[in-house]
Amino acid sequence: MSEAAVVVVEIARRAKAAAAELATLCTAAKDAALIAAADALVARSAEILAANSKDVDQARAEGMHESLVDRLALSPARVEAMADGLREVAALADPVGEILSGWTRPNGLEIRKIRVPLGVVGIIYEARPNVTADAAGLCLKAGNACVLRGSGSALASNQAIVAVMSEALAAAGIPEGAVGLVPFADRESAKVLMSLREYVDALIPRGGAGLIRTVVENSTIPVIETGVGNCHVYVDAKADLAKALPILVNAKVQRPGVCNAAETLLVHSDIAEAFLPEAIKALQDKGCVLYGDERTRTLGEGILPAGDEEYREEFLDLKMAVRVVDSLEQAIEHIATYSSHHTEAIVTEDYSAARRFAAAVDSAVVMVNASTRFTDGGEFGFGAEIGISTQKLHARGPMGLPELTTYKFVVFGEGQIRS
Amino acid sequence: MSEAAVVVVEIARRAKAAAAELATLCTAAKDAALIAAADALVARSAEILAANSKDVDQARAEGMHESLVDRLALSPARVEAMADGLREVAALADPVGEILSGWTRPNGLEIRKIRVPLGVVGIIYEARPNVTADAAGLCLKAGNACVLRGSGSALASNQAIVAVMSEALAAAGIPEGAVGLVPFADRESAKVLMSLREYVDALIPRGGAGLIRTVVENSTIPVIETGVGNCHVYVDAKADLAKALPILVNAKVQRPGVCNAAETLLVHSDIAEAFLPEAIKALQDKGCVLYGDERTRTLGEGILPAGDEEYREEFLDLKMAVRVVDSLEQAIEHIATYSSHHTEAIVTEDYSAARRFAAAVDSAVVMVNASTRFTDGGEFGFGAEIGISTQKLHARGPMGLPELTTYKFVVFGEGQIRS
Repeated sequence: MSEAAVVVVEIARRAKAAAAELATLCTAAKDAALIAAADALVARSAEILAANSKDVDQARAEGMHESLVDRLALSPARVEAMADGLREVAALADPVGEILSGWTRPNGLEIRKIRVPLGVVGIIYEARPNVTADAAGLCLKAGNACVLRGSGSALASNQAIVAVMSEALAAAGIPEGAVGLVPFADRESAKVLMSLREYVDALIPRGGAGLIRTVVENSTIPVIETGVGNCHVYVDAKADLAKALPILVNAKVQRPGVCNAAETLLVHSDIAEAFLPEAIKALQDKGCVLYGDERTRTLGEGILPAGDEEYREEFLDLKMAVRVVDSLEQAIEHIATYSSHHTEAIVTEDYSAARRFAAAVDSAVVMVNASTRFTDGGEFGFGAEIGISTQKLHARGPMGLPELTTYKFVVFGEGQIRS
Repeated sequence: MSEAAVVVVEIARRAKAAAAELATLCTAAKDAALIAAADALVARSAEILAANSKDVDQARAEGMHESLVDRLALSPARVEAMADGLREVAALADPVGEILSGWTRPNGLEIRKIRVPLGVVGIIYEARPNVTADAAGLCLKAGNACVLRGSGSALASNQAIVAVMSEALAAAGIPEGAVGLVPFADRESAKVLMSLREYVDALIPRGGAGLIRTVVENSTIPVIETGVGNCHVYVDAKADLAKALPILVNAKVQRPGVCNAAETLLVHSDIAEAFLPEAIKALQDKGCVLYGDERTRTLGEGILPAGDEEYREEFLDLKMAVRVVDSLEQAIEHIATYSSHHTEAIVTEDYSAARRFAAAVDSAVVMVNASTRFTDGGEFGFGAEIGISTQKLHARGPMGLPELTTYKFVVFGEGQIRS
C-alpha cells in the first residue's frame, strides 16, 4: 500500500469507530454540536477565507474558467450561509430511532423495524467547498460518520473547514474521526476509498456525469447514484397552453445549469402549430439555442437539426432539443429511450393522459402540470438535500435525512426457539 | 462481443421491454398467470424431472458430493412444492401501487410517493433448481421482469422449468421475456450480466460467500448482498439459564447449514461456571465440535483452542466457537469485530443490558431472548423471502415482496413554476 492509501484507510477506520458511538448519541447532543460547529465557522471565518484565497489564486493561475472560480470562491456571506445551513440541519427532526413498523407473531415474538444510521457515508464531490460543511452536517444529524473526498482545487478550503468544524465538534463531545477528509485529490486515493467495504457503508458521488460514472464503475461499496438529469417536458394534445408556456420556460431557463432543468421538449402533433411558434420564440428570446426534428424546424427560425445525440445530451446550458410526437405513447417511448430517469413533466388537462403518463414513465419524479425544477429536497419540504438519486435501490429522487439511514430489526422474545 | 455475450444482452434487453409492461399490469392478471404457471409445472412435471435426471446423472458422473446432489435433485413432491410456492406468492398482497406517503406543499403541489416495481432484477444463484421458480414468481408478483443465472450443474433443470413457466405465463398474457434465463454457466456470461446497467436495475446473489463476493466485486449494477451469517448468541450475566440453553442449542444445531444458525457463543464470566459446563455438554451431545478460549476450555472436555480464525468463520456445520467475556461491552466489541452483521442474540433478564445490546449491535436483526433461527421471511410473517440482506442500503434482514420494489414521486400541480 502506498503512503496515501495508508492515510485513507486510517481515516475510514477512525470514521467507523466514531460511527459506533454516533449511532447511539442523543438528538440534543448532535444538535448542540452542529450549532457549535456553525458558530465556529463564523468565528474562524478568517482562517477559512485565507485558505480559500490560496485555492482561488492557484485555480486562476492554472487558468480555471471564471464561472468555476465563482463556485470555488468563498466570501464572508458564503461562510455565514454554510453556518446557517448547519443550524437549519440542527433544527430538523432526527430520523434515528423511528419505529418504521412493528408487529407480534403468533408465537409471541415482537418484531420492531427501527430506523438507524447507515454508519459511515463516503462522499466524493467536486469543486464547491460549501458541500463539505453541508454533507458533514447532514451525515452527523443522521448519526453517521463521513469520509469526504473533495476536489483538488478546493483542498485547502476543505481542510480549513473540516479543521474548524472538527475542533468544535470534538469540544461538543462528538467522537474524533466523525468527519474525515481525504487530504489528497489524486485518483489513487479515490480508488482506495471506493474499495473500503469494511469501513464504509455507502458512497454518494456528487458532481458531473464523469465523476458519477467513475464511482459507479469502480466502487465495491454500495453507491447511490445521483444527479444526471436529461429531463423532459411533454406538452400533450389537451394541454392548457397558458400553463404549458410558463412551465416550459421555467423548466428550461430559470437555472439551466442544474440537473432538474429540462433538456428536451416533446409536443403532441395536434397542438404543435398552436404551441410551438410561440414556444420557440419565447425560448429564443431567453437566449436558448434550439435543436429540432423536421416538423419543429418548419415552425420556427434558426433551429438546428436534432438527432440521437441532441436527444440524449444533458446540456446544462441554454440549449434545448425539441420533437413533435404523434401520440402520448410516442412521448413515453421517447422518454424511455433517452431519459436519465430523473424528472419528466406532462402538461395536460386530460385525466387519462395524466394517469397514463404518471404510470408509464419510469423516472424518479413525474410532474403533472408543474415545472421539472421542483425536483429538489427543499421544494419537496425535506429541509435539506444530500442529492437526487437516479437509481432505484435504497432511495429515488430527492434525498433528505431519512435517506441517510437504514433500519434494523429488534425482536423481543421470552425464550422462543424454532421448531 | 462473444456469441454468449450477445445472447445475455438480448435476454436482458427483452426483460427490460417486458418490465415496462409488467409495471402497469393489474394484480389479478399477475396472480392468474402465477397460478397458471404453477399448474403447468405440475402438469408437465415429467419434462422437468427428465431434464433434472440428466443434471443429476452428470453431477454424479463428475463426482458431486451426495449432499449437493440432494440439493440438485427434484422429485414429483419437490415439483409440487415449487408449484405450491407460486400459488402462495399469488395469494400474497401486491405491493405495487401503495402510497407510501403524500403531502401538499404551501404552493399547492401535491406530492405522492408511490411504490413501483424495481424493473429488471438479476438473480445469480447456485445449485437448487427450485430457486428458479421461486425467484421468478416473487419478481413477477412485484411487477418485475427477471434475468436468472443459475449454476451449470442445474442448467437442464432450470431450462425446463423456465420453458414450462414461460409458456404458461405467455398464454396468461404476461409479456415475453419477463422470465429470462441465461443459458450458460461460464464466468464470462456472469460478468456480462453484471455489467448491464442499462437493462438491469438490481442484482441479487444467492449462494455461498464466494459467489456473493464475486458479484459484489464485479458488478456495476447495484447489488443487494445477501446471506453470509456469522451469528452470535450472547448469554448475559443476568440470563435466565432455563431460556439460554434451549436458545443456544436451537440456534446452533436445529439446522446448522443455514445462514441464521449461530456460530459463536459468548458467555459473561459471572455465569460461565454456572452455564458453560452444561452448555458444552449439551452441544457436544448433539455432535458439536467446540473451539474455546482458555477459560472455556477449563469448563469442559475436548474443546479445541479458538483464535481469530475460528471466531471469524461461518462454519455452516456442527461446529461452534466459544468465548468467555468479562462484560456486556466486551461482548458487543467481539461482535463488532467478528460478526457478518446478520443476526445476534442476547439472553438476559436485565432491562438495561437488553436495551444496550439492541442499540449497540449493528446487525440486520437483534434477538432478545429468542433463537437466531427466527431471522427468516416466513418466520417474520412476510409469506415469502427472496433472501436476507446483510448490507445497509435498500433492504436489511429478511426481504419479502416490498423489498423487490422501489418508489417514484408523482407530483400534481396546476401550472406551478419555480421562482
